[in-house]
Amino acid sequence: MDRKRLSESEIQLKLKSLKDWICANGRLHKEFKFKDFIAAFGFMASVALLAESMNHHPDWSNVYNRVVVELHTHDAGGLTEFDFELARRIDALV
Amino acid sequence: MDRKRLSESEIQLKLKSLKDWICANGRLHKEFKFKDFIAAFGFMASVALLAESMNHHPDWSNVYNRVVVELHTHDAGGLTEFDFELARRIDALV
Repeated sequence: MDRKRLSESEIQLKLKSLKDWICANGRLHKEFKFKDFIAAFGFMASVALLAESMNHHPDWSNVYNRVVVELHTHDAGGLTEFDFELARRIDALV
Repeated sequence: MDRKRLSESEIQLKLKSLKDWICANGRLHKEFKFKDFIAAFGFMASVALLAESMNHHPDWSNVYNRVVVELHTHDAGGLTEFDFELARRIDALV
């Protein structure tokens, strides 16, 4: 996988393969809603293991049963293959 | 413990017993910094268990080795004993 910053046209193309992710302020963004906190934090624990194994970590927040995930590649100053790959793997969890 | 909303003077008094928590916008707020993501998420897992056991959950966010925790009692429209008790228990973890 490449840590090269993707162009706007590459981003728009890749977004079509993801479900309900949007690109805003140079970040991939998605909100997940669960039954309760237990389910939400269970999801977060799974994402944490994915992120650490990829050495690519989300910016994220949680309020009770909601988790907002934002992905970008700090070093590249934008979105890279890593962000789309992590998004795909996160979606595969739910 | 009481879910009654605390007065401003009660809040200021209780804040003195906490380390590095501030009250902003009617919420208790503290930022924690760790060595890396593994340590940060380990902390979050511990807080999640505390929160669930108290049925009192934080609003929080994480970026790599940093965790920002905000506490308030939604039903009371402000801060209650529960927020201060959860803050104390969170501090006892680190």
